[in-house]
Amino acid sequence: MLINGTPTQVIEAADRGLQYGDGLFETLAVVEGQPCLWKPHMNRLRSGCERMGIECPDESLLLRESLAEIDAEQHGILKIIVTRGAGQRGYRPPVPSKPNRILDCTPWPAHLDTRSDPGVEVRLCSLRLGRNPVLAGMKTLNRIEQVLARSEWSDDRIAEGLMFDTEGYLIEGTASNLFLFLRGRLVTPDLTNCGIAGIMRGLVMEQAEKLGIPLSIQNLRLADLKAADGLFLTNSLIGIRPVAKVGDWTYGLECMDTGLVKEVVSRGFGDEVH
Amino acid sequence: MLINGTPTQVIEAADRGLQYGDGLFETLAVVEGQPCLWKPHMNRLRSGCERMGIECPDESLLLRESLAEIDAEQHGILKIIVTRGAGQRGYRPPVPSKPNRILDCTPWPAHLDTRSDPGVEVRLCSLRLGRNPVLAGMKTLNRIEQVLARSEWSDDRIAEGLMFDTEGYLIEGTASNLFLFLRGRLVTPDLTNCGIAGIMRGLVMEQAEKLGIPLSIQNLRLADLKAADGLFLTNSLIGIRPVAKVGDWTYGLECMDTGLVKEVVSRGFGDEVH
Repeated sequence: MLINGTPTQVIEAADRGLQYGDGLFETLAVVEGQPCLWKPHMNRLRSGCERMGIECPDESLLLRESLAEIDAEQHGILKIIVTRGAGQRGYRPPVPSKPNRILDCTPWPAHLDTRSDPGVEVRLCSLRLGRNPVLAGMKTLNRIEQVLARSEWSDDRIAEGLMFDTEGYLIEGTASNLFLFLRGRLVTPDLTNCGIAGIMRGLVMEQAEKLGIPLSIQNLRLADLKAADGLFLTNSLIGIRPVAKVGDWTYGLECMDTGLVKEVVSRGFGDEVH
Repeated sequence: MLINGTPTQVIEAADRGLQYGDGLFETLAVVEGQPCLWKPHMNRLRSGCERMGIECPDESLLLRESLAEIDAEQHGILKIIVTRGAGQRGYRPPVPSKPNRILDCTPWPAHLDTRSDPGVEVRLCSLRLGRNPVLAGMKTLNRIEQVLARSEWSDDRIAEGLMFDTEGYLIEGTASNLFLFLRGRLVTPDLTNCGIAGIMRGLVMEQAEKLGIPLSIQNLRLADLKAADGLFLTNSLIGIRPVAKVGDWTYGLECMDTGLVKEVVSRGFGDEVH
């Protein structure tokens, strides 16, 4: 782990990341020693920092430190946390603040190697996501909803849990975004009110547009999930992961055989490196 | 600062309190070297831990460590943080977990000495609170909404900002609860969907009941705030703080001259010590 460029495992407990979850993070796949999709991750981090009023660390500094932290790790996961830094007591942000950057690269976990998996099984979470447009889309350090949703199951055969918001709209998985093939279109939930705007989600949307595949961002409900001809999850680590089962409902995997999915999967992660 | 009983300023960056805001905290006034309202603070902490599935540290251990951390500080603020501890990568909580306890006692800040203040000036925050009954009432480490609301003003004459939720209901201050004198009753916002159930709020409600003062917990809107005959803020540090102004609206302070307010103020903090 590198904190502000120094190898260490510890941080001041006065850091506002701990005190209030006052920060943001990015999780990147590392392939052949390189952080994947670097640019879009940095763009999201910078945009989140702007929305939160945190001074975003310089991208070239983060890249230099990332490569140092990745070191000899050929295949792994790089997590980059940026907090507002330490401050005096109370919610009021210090001005100026001294943001802290925490970089941690860990080996690729075996359970993520599912490219050969024909389709995973997922469940519906009972915990609902609160709605707040001011926070929606950002990958902040306020993640208790995801923690509680993920604690709803311990069966390792269940790869992910799908989450609805408090109004009953289908939003995302605990650690992934969601796409459905629905009535001839590719659709993904609207994230105006909650959810994290995933980098892989953005990449899939971009590719769909390039390939002329009709795509909608819309409000979705349980009935849409049931009516879907197929669905897949996305995130920066798993890429695209087809879903075979949601609880008792089964889904065909033929839809995965589209140009879009093939395109995104075949590109893998290597192309988008910085 | 004491972390798990050891004097230190640093904690593992792998702590889930930092990674996800996966924890809870309590802020206690320290008067004459004693933590005030110890029992109700511990009850809320225990209840929050239960709801979050975190094993709550033993109360007698926390008290022992609190007294050690308070040390010679006669008048101060004691913050107790309990996190789920460190874990492997990902939202899934480790089972069993090893919660961390972080105790920090700081001197009483001069700006909180406002007992002689006839009434403070507050403002309305534009940031809205998201609604989620699963998290409502708890003092979790997910506090970005409060941080962003508190960053809306820097004028030190403004003592607090009042917050509404995304549905337009008046909920609380950024770091306090709120009571109105409205149509002959004492009323405080319903916290079923969001907000923190403050210890001083609970004490005021308890006292009101004892004194036979009609009290309602209800949904309140901006119009109710405007219609109020008076209002006050509460938290464990300020006790009861009358409000003289909300933006351009002014409020009489005669309502403060009730048995309830006198009773709570006269009790001070000393009685409720463990």
